[in-house]
Amino acid sequence: MPPPLQAVTHPAQPSAAEHARTIAAAGNTATLATLTARGAPWASLVAYGLLDGAPVLCVSSLAEHGRNLAHDPRASLSIVTASDDDDPLATSRITLAGEVHAPAAASAARSAYLQAVPGARFYVHYSDFTLWVLDVERVRWVGGYGRMDSAAAADYAAAEPDPVTPNAAGAIAHLNADHADALRSMTRAFGGYPDADDVVCTGIDRYGLDVRVHTPRGIAYTRVGFPERLNSADQLRSVTADLAHRSTAAH
Amino acid sequence: MPPPLQAVTHPAQPSAAEHARTIAAAGNTATLATLTARGAPWASLVAYGLLDGAPVLCVSSLAEHGRNLAHDPRASLSIVTASDDDDPLATSRITLAGEVHAPAAASAARSAYLQAVPGARFYVHYSDFTLWVLDVERVRWVGGYGRMDSAAAADYAAAEPDPVTPNAAGAIAHLNADHADALRSMTRAFGGYPDADDVVCTGIDRYGLDVRVHTPRGIAYTRVGFPERLNSADQLRSVTADLAHRSTAAH
Repeated sequence: MPPPLQAVTHPAQPSAAEHARTIAAAGNTATLATLTARGAPWASLVAYGLLDGAPVLCVSSLAEHGRNLAHDPRASLSIVTASDDDDPLATSRITLAGEVHAPAAASAARSAYLQAVPGARFYVHYSDFTLWVLDVERVRWVGGYGRMDSAAAADYAAAEPDPVTPNAAGAIAHLNADHADALRSMTRAFGGYPDADDVVCTGIDRYGLDVRVHTPRGIAYTRVGFPERLNSADQLRSVTADLAHRSTAAH
Repeated sequence: MPPPLQAVTHPAQPSAAEHARTIAAAGNTATLATLTARGAPWASLVAYGLLDGAPVLCVSSLAEHGRNLAHDPRASLSIVTASDDDDPLATSRITLAGEVHAPAAASAARSAYLQAVPGARFYVHYSDFTLWVLDVERVRWVGGYGRMDSAAAADYAAAEPDPVTPNAAGAIAHLNADHADALRSMTRAFGGYPDADDVVCTGIDRYGLDVRVHTPRGIAYTRVGFPERLNSADQLRSVTADLAHRSTAAH
């Protein structure tokens, strides 16, 4: 990958903990790994809610994973971001691992589960269903090929889900379809690649844009960072328009 | 659920083993459950191919799940059918469990993986990637709420993926949109519910149609079975048209 020719102006990116919280907050289904009575792994689909980032499960004690959790609280969840990419391993995902416990505040846990899984109102009160909260001890984020990191449990618990990423698909498509000139201009001025020719936006978060940059020296990946962290998706249009304007003025 | 008022003419349905093979054959991503060095469960996204129904994995020994498999071959895979249903637990899925081994015929395993995951041609030969085949010892199928069963490993190995189910969505939509009269007529004549009024097709397999039946006595679920097992999706249109024709003649 050709190196940048000048410094990226605002290089801040989400941390692995922020990525993980964002992925967890965007979904309501995961695959749970539990241990059978013989200590073998068992993978099964579950729905989940979130209580301050901790996954809340509601599983039947008649189901194998329910019996497994009652027998051994060690558990892991894989949560995968929905993706249209043909390559199944290009999508971002996380693994959370730790031990489940019965929630101290059952009503808060139940509410968190029902908020994420409204259909559970038909069974959440059944006597064979048990609420469990996963104490997250380990966090692994994989953002696609070559983008991966672990996060400390405390960082994951403290992180905020990104307010921009979950609904960024429309903005990404709009930028690529209608604002190729602005993307190029911003990448030349602020992304470290003054020799950029074609630029494609591949992601947006509260800190900036992920861009794939074609240059005469080869293809590179860089950031067009926002001057300040966004607190709402509503800010995206104006901050991007302002960056595009300033990037033109910079030439 | 109101009982049928007469026998279902062709009540055959796919076995749990057939459902499981069909679900496995339709996808190329799964969640793998492995054991960490401490024997705790670890859930992670993987891509897979199939070698006579046995999942073939290709994982990096640098990744946690790769290290886990090298240390303890016990593993489980959860494979979930893609679904548009709002209810995340209405979808069909399977859990396979057993032990992985290095394939005796590495080239056959590699070909099976590459057929399902063409993008792997860029890394399948890397020295840190290892091919594993899962010896399936346990099979659990869940078809949605209240539809579930286990299958014997030998039955899973011997079962054929259904040739009709994977591409049935278009036919289901067509039947429901344009042939409500035929669905009602077939369900009255062959589905055991002569008092059917509204009928919706909810699934199609090589043995027949799954239908949801509204009757004056309540909502029921039944089958409109084909006279013979289909061997190709090409047969679906003619066998359904013939059943519809005969159901009208039967009145």
